[in-house]
Amino acid sequence: MMITVDTLIHARWIVPVLPENEVLEYHCLVINQGRIIDLLASAAVEQKYISKQIEKLEHHVLIPGLINSHTHTPMSLMRGIADDLPLMEWLEKHIWPLEQKWMSEEFVSDGTDLAIAEMLRGGTTCFNDMYFFPNITAHRAIKAGIRASIGLILIDFPSVWAKNSEEYLEKGILLHLSMLTEPLVSCVFAPHAPYTVADESLKKIVTSSEQLNLPVHMHVHETEFEVHQQQRQTKETPLERLSRLGLLKPNFIAVHMTQLSDKEIYDYAKTGGHIVHCPESNLKLGSGFCPISAALDAGINVALGTDSAASNNDLDMFGEMRTAALLAKGVTRNASSIPAMTALKMATINGAKALGLEDNIGSLSIGKDADVVAINLDELETQPLYDVVSHIVYACSRQQVTDVWVAGKHLLKQRQLTQLDITELKSKLSKWQQRLSTFK
Amino acid sequence: MMITVDTLIHARWIVPVLPENEVLEYHCLVINQGRIIDLLASAAVEQKYISKQIEKLEHHVLIPGLINSHTHTPMSLMRGIADDLPLMEWLEKHIWPLEQKWMSEEFVSDGTDLAIAEMLRGGTTCFNDMYFFPNITAHRAIKAGIRASIGLILIDFPSVWAKNSEEYLEKGILLHLSMLTEPLVSCVFAPHAPYTVADESLKKIVTSSEQLNLPVHMHVHETEFEVHQQQRQTKETPLERLSRLGLLKPNFIAVHMTQLSDKEIYDYAKTGGHIVHCPESNLKLGSGFCPISAALDAGINVALGTDSAASNNDLDMFGEMRTAALLAKGVTRNASSIPAMTALKMATINGAKALGLEDNIGSLSIGKDADVVAINLDELETQPLYDVVSHIVYACSRQQVTDVWVAGKHLLKQRQLTQLDITELKSKLSKWQQRLSTFK
Repeated sequence: MMITVDTLIHARWIVPVLPENEVLEYHCLVINQGRIIDLLASAAVEQKYISKQIEKLEHHVLIPGLINSHTHTPMSLMRGIADDLPLMEWLEKHIWPLEQKWMSEEFVSDGTDLAIAEMLRGGTTCFNDMYFFPNITAHRAIKAGIRASIGLILIDFPSVWAKNSEEYLEKGILLHLSMLTEPLVSCVFAPHAPYTVADESLKKIVTSSEQLNLPVHMHVHETEFEVHQQQRQTKETPLERLSRLGLLKPNFIAVHMTQLSDKEIYDYAKTGGHIVHCPESNLKLGSGFCPISAALDAGINVALGTDSAASNNDLDMFGEMRTAALLAKGVTRNASSIPAMTALKMATINGAKALGLEDNIGSLSIGKDADVVAINLDELETQPLYDVVSHIVYACSRQQVTDVWVAGKHLLKQRQLTQLDITELKSKLSKWQQRLSTFK
Repeated sequence: MMITVDTLIHARWIVPVLPENEVLEYHCLVINQGRIIDLLASAAVEQKYISKQIEKLEHHVLIPGLINSHTHTPMSLMRGIADDLPLMEWLEKHIWPLEQKWMSEEFVSDGTDLAIAEMLRGGTTCFNDMYFFPNITAHRAIKAGIRASIGLILIDFPSVWAKNSEEYLEKGILLHLSMLTEPLVSCVFAPHAPYTVADESLKKIVTSSEQLNLPVHMHVHETEFEVHQQQRQTKETPLERLSRLGLLKPNFIAVHMTQLSDKEIYDYAKTGGHIVHCPESNLKLGSGFCPISAALDAGINVALGTDSAASNNDLDMFGEMRTAALLAKGVTRNASSIPAMTALKMATINGAKALGLEDNIGSLSIGKDADVVAINLDELETQPLYDVVSHIVYACSRQQVTDVWVAGKHLLKQRQLTQLDITELKSKLSKWQQRLSTFK
């Protein structure tokens, strides 16, 4: 008996990521009600499935939607506004004063829209965010149809979003509760960093994250300065302090982690916590190198993030995979470190694991949601072709992404965004450019 | 009196590179007989120049054509054929056996065509090559209209191009003489590396390069292994040996240089020699980091190259500028190291200086040849815009290059190559893919 389904995507190649190293040729992804319900040889489809929506991608590879595991999406409005400066000077003299002046619901809304548009155009289908007005970011994500892990930010200084730690926490929890019925939005606690959140608040987050079963997403050991400062204050490293407070558990997502001794890697691995590696941001701010080869060897789940467009200056997960793979080889002096497939896993299934979403996304597996990216490999820049995964990581650019689906919905169609009005967005960006330039 | 000229290019921005840090707005580049003859405010053009060819690039920045100062263009046929392997294993077990089997005029011709097409599509207008059958590469460059610095290769093992060192040298010199009337082709001696060329051959190259006034282009201090091997053999470093043989002079172009002590940087600076930094290739092969910040501080002219597409895996000078700028910050832990403008200079004027072509190219200066690249900054990925040079280096991708001129000839027109037949090229690449796959 024939089965009628929503969408059939035939592709020259499919790299499902799980099982690892599998490259299917001339296969078809069968999507119904937002889920992947089958993955079979194209030749076998006609006898089994009928659909009104059939895509035939003759020169394309399908991969799972890329997961950007660390973003501050609204900061895209500050792309390139202050470059070539160290982290603290960059934050204290440029980013924070600009935010102080301009932070608003409108700022967050327009910045998030820009980031979402850029991410979808580049094959990113899910992002893990940390910023003020997370409610606005959540609603813009819902409107755009992209999957989002929304950070319930907590930082020990007042902002227009919340006046103190209690209010940050309270508003965060309310947001989480209001999002429970949203299939594409999940929430994570997001205490900013060890140096900006006091013990008391962190303890509350531990309690709440247990009660609500939510992950905790935090900048940790980003710079040597951060580690030394903590050591001067409490004679412990930030990781030791977080351990003492009970944060280091399998739901902990530590971002950056450029300062790690072998012992710290070993100890962190035992906690079951995750690392989000942001290689381009760490390079650009001169923060250091996260030892991802050693971390992976120790059994730590390592995901990838771009950080914000203000310190990158893009939200390009293809670039991030490539930089992660190249940089690891350079740092370890071992050209076999982080092969292409490992980089692709970091940008897909490892991200899903870090965010606690591996049952739904991260691979093109039957039963998971249909977050799918099609990449056209028929460009000169990816010719000849001997190894599809090599080209995805080392040769192709995000402009070769032609189509993107999130939960089966076609959000990028032959490079056109289906849910966002680019012209309107550009006119808003032009206004922000004028405002922020004047202040700068 | 009105002057009739070949081409007028009005642009929203022009970054001439010289003078440094200048960003002109609403200016026009005036081109006649292949040269830049004026650069003036767009508003002033009407009273001075007439042309049948007027380009109005309202959202674009014009920059000098990018100079890829180290390539092995025909190796593009081996893009992605063997990844994630250390240099010597990669060369000895994969690249050299493939070359042994397949090297021919046809291989070089088709591989060069692919590389030229990729380079022009990415804003590269000049490349400095090193490979067998340099005569073929020179002729393909002439046919395509791209500028080329052709390496007269010398390596102490036989190939189908030459059977011994004498023949390499002789054929190289003959090629140079045959190219003297070609305005877009220059030649450089290209002894492969210290570990593949004997003293006697290097001495001959010193003599010939003086007689013919040609630069010398060589891989130097690429890996620790190379340095140690030389030290075991002659108790001197490769640089010490090259110094003893008289190669280290202002016409010397040392590629890679990842192994350099402070003293070696100081000594090399005194010779007046150049460095070509290939950050992505050095990372991918795990070779080490070239200390470019220290080299520039010491007064060394540092240019940029991609190396071959077999160890990169692209010929993307935008990617290389970005990686150079980011990596330098990471290695020195100094976010102010290699600001965007420095990276752009490395990819333009510094390349021109290294190749001895700074009188002709490397900046949009009156009197120089019109090697010009237009980049469309009106994409979401380069919005908002606060700093044009920042976006060129940190945010934009080579797909935003819309138009390319070499010596005034329009080689890429709204992203279409005007001199190369892509369909024919792709069918040739498909044949090579089959042949090389079988052998692999």
